[in-house]
Amino acid sequence: MNTQLRKPLYEALTEHVNRNPISFHVPGHKYGWIDQSDENHFFKQLLKIDATELSGLDDLHSPEGAILEAETLLTELYHTTKSFFLVNGSTVGNLAMIMAVCTEGSPVLVQRNCHKSVLNALRLAKARPVFLEPELNQDWKIAAGVSVETVKQAINLYPDTKAIILTYPNYYGMTYNLQEIIDLCHLHQIPVLVDEAHGPHLIIGGPFPASAVQLGADMVVQSAHKTLPAMTMGSFLHINSDRVNMEKVKEYLEIFQSSSPSYPIMASLDLSRHYLDTYEQRDLSFLLTEIKHFKEELAKIPTIQVLEFPNNQGDFLKITIQSRCKLNGFELQKRLELSGVYTELADPYNVLFILPLVKERQCYPLKEAAAKIKKALEGLPFYRMDEEFPMEGNKISELAIPFEEMTALAVEEIPIGGSSGSICAETIIPYPPGVPLLVRGERITVEKLSRLNRLLQSGARFQGGTTIKRGLIKIFSTT
Amino acid sequence: MNTQLRKPLYEALTEHVNRNPISFHVPGHKYGWIDQSDENHFFKQLLKIDATELSGLDDLHSPEGAILEAETLLTELYHTTKSFFLVNGSTVGNLAMIMAVCTEGSPVLVQRNCHKSVLNALRLAKARPVFLEPELNQDWKIAAGVSVETVKQAINLYPDTKAIILTYPNYYGMTYNLQEIIDLCHLHQIPVLVDEAHGPHLIIGGPFPASAVQLGADMVVQSAHKTLPAMTMGSFLHINSDRVNMEKVKEYLEIFQSSSPSYPIMASLDLSRHYLDTYEQRDLSFLLTEIKHFKEELAKIPTIQVLEFPNNQGDFLKITIQSRCKLNGFELQKRLELSGVYTELADPYNVLFILPLVKERQCYPLKEAAAKIKKALEGLPFYRMDEEFPMEGNKISELAIPFEEMTALAVEEIPIGGSSGSICAETIIPYPPGVPLLVRGERITVEKLSRLNRLLQSGARFQGGTTIKRGLIKIFSTT
Repeated sequence: MNTQLRKPLYEALTEHVNRNPISFHVPGHKYGWIDQSDENHFFKQLLKIDATELSGLDDLHSPEGAILEAETLLTELYHTTKSFFLVNGSTVGNLAMIMAVCTEGSPVLVQRNCHKSVLNALRLAKARPVFLEPELNQDWKIAAGVSVETVKQAINLYPDTKAIILTYPNYYGMTYNLQEIIDLCHLHQIPVLVDEAHGPHLIIGGPFPASAVQLGADMVVQSAHKTLPAMTMGSFLHINSDRVNMEKVKEYLEIFQSSSPSYPIMASLDLSRHYLDTYEQRDLSFLLTEIKHFKEELAKIPTIQVLEFPNNQGDFLKITIQSRCKLNGFELQKRLELSGVYTELADPYNVLFILPLVKERQCYPLKEAAAKIKKALEGLPFYRMDEEFPMEGNKISELAIPFEEMTALAVEEIPIGGSSGSICAETIIPYPPGVPLLVRGERITVEKLSRLNRLLQSGARFQGGTTIKRGLIKIFSTT
Repeated sequence: MNTQLRKPLYEALTEHVNRNPISFHVPGHKYGWIDQSDENHFFKQLLKIDATELSGLDDLHSPEGAILEAETLLTELYHTTKSFFLVNGSTVGNLAMIMAVCTEGSPVLVQRNCHKSVLNALRLAKARPVFLEPELNQDWKIAAGVSVETVKQAINLYPDTKAIILTYPNYYGMTYNLQEIIDLCHLHQIPVLVDEAHGPHLIIGGPFPASAVQLGADMVVQSAHKTLPAMTMGSFLHINSDRVNMEKVKEYLEIFQSSSPSYPIMASLDLSRHYLDTYEQRDLSFLLTEIKHFKEELAKIPTIQVLEFPNNQGDFLKITIQSRCKLNGFELQKRLELSGVYTELADPYNVLFILPLVKERQCYPLKEAAAKIKKALEGLPFYRMDEEFPMEGNKISELAIPFEEMTALAVEEIPIGGSSGSICAETIIPYPPGVPLLVRGERITVEKLSRLNRLLQSGARFQGGTTIKRGLIKIFSTT
């Protein structure tokens, strides 16, 4: 049998179930035997494969059997040096790759609009982040990618840069000239680490943009659970060159992940790899046709604008609509929810849809959804917000103080209005998309305060920023 | 309704499912819609509740709704200051509590036979571990708990100890005089952190031993998935006093756990809390009777000895049998597996069973299992191993070099036989139980080598120790 058609871990689990084993081991539900009330019917079947490191089921932290086979098929699918299953999200992939590459005090170029797990990892590693401001797309009113020019300047300013950490694509599916940045960095012996959380499906091929793996990034993290049929928390980490220390990466994966990784999550990663391995051209054609029709239906609604990717290049699994009425993005999202349509993300202007990665003849209720959306947004007068999206002055910036110094300083709360110029003592993150607006240790600027106030007014959700809803912000006392 | 009877998160998820939402968000399976082949029937129902941070489903990292309600019920059940759901196992609970309490270079008393996640956390924190050798039980031939005397001596030697980290109960369900140790430590303002991975069910009450939470430990981690009906990776972290900085703990929980925590895992934690909240005296009576009958059946088998807890005190959900034939523990375990009975753990002498925490009238196939075990072990001649279990000389020891120095040293591989006296450069862990035999940075002794050789001969599994099966061990080059 063509090995790509196998599902080694899923098969090993199925074999185990078929033996009708009597469990005297963890987990405590004993394959779902405990607490089998009809009420808890969601779990009954799944718990049969919620096993542990038994004979034949291998061990994620030192794989030699079914898990190694499954990871090998993953490695072959992506054509990497070595690929790993992750059970603690792309969060742990970012933690591991950054801890493995960065050393204390070493400058590391970081795309500013990165996931908070990247910042957390840099702090743990006590690295010295050099933030690269991304370009802004004024039509979409969002941050896109970093320009090659900015990277060039940063390398000149910081010739002993140890690594660069980029996010690609961005949350909205936008890409940028990653190939040129990778080539430039490699010319300077700088390893390229990419948070491609949103891109595990890109290797399907055109018209999807190329994956960072295919463009030669040295390490790439992907959230299989975001676009493939994997369970939440299931991710991939790809090592794509020998510029990085694989043993160190493996060490950190062992440190930061449970010693009892979830077999259902791992099995769903195996199945997702298989799903991609069997995704054919006709499936892609079908998917693109479905997406096209859905966009056409959305385009008929006057109070929203379906945004097009610059140069028609981007992740077509993502559709972003922008408000053309007086409702902001959050209010639009809410209205769609009330009609039963749940979207991924809202910002003050937009709403993001992530489409299902269907195969041929899998007819997702897109027509039904389009009708609900149309109905939810009818009767609203057309209105276009012509607001300037502020540009950040500095393309390259650092924290105001290094991580080690922060632990010694006292923290105080002051009114947001009077905080410009102070050093922020908290990381404030609108979520989704989980990208910090202010990083602990950064200087607070007028432009950042303006963005913060706008988000507060729009009713955005935050992680961190425990006092901002009361009009206060935490700063370090440096005087 | 009595609030303890509610399941806030599970109910919120069920409500959401019943709205028949159309998903344009992560995860990519869209509530199980993608890849619905009959073949993957294990996942179909479960994926309906594999949701993400939508309206009404709250957010583990800043809970305000259903998750906060569920965690509040957990807090009330255990009578703690504050209890948390964890989705990355007790591993992350240990990481968070240790990182929150320990500072660089500060001495921390650690029970030597601790979980590797404890050692990893100490290394990350760059703390200075002071290892406390546990007492050995010569009948069971295993390490038990630390003596009060050892703790006293250690506090005298290290008066500026920042914390003590204990494991209770041990893997086999043994307890020790934790109350006295806690009182002693609190007298010296030393916070007590307990890895009670194996004890989430102990609060059911006598004859189960008291939980560390009830005995006044300051922070306690429990693997709900080990003995309660929670999914693997589901755990609890309890803050039980104000001696610890809760904000720091929350910070680290956010850093070390996926920003997309699994709703099925969290829901199973909610259901487990509910299971305990509704566990009644008659359920306990039924459970104890079932366990008693099972032990009586096992006692009839001449080639094994059912071990009794010292002073009849221990976790009765655990049953340990010791070999009375020429098969060692691993071989016994294997033989039971071949007959369809899967146990939790084997060591060179014993096999550990974890019984199911049944409620009244839930008749687990214990009779069937006992019959299989009897059959699997019939015909073996009686044989008793009268081997001395070596005692470690030093009750209190440190690493040979601090963590920071290790990163600068070169590592070489030498034959195991000639390694006595060298500093071990790898952590060698038989798994289960996930307790290191040698810690990276420790001096290799004759006694440790003897234990290592014994395990190698018995066919034990290891994490780390990548070269020991070839007769080599990694050491730091210090000459």
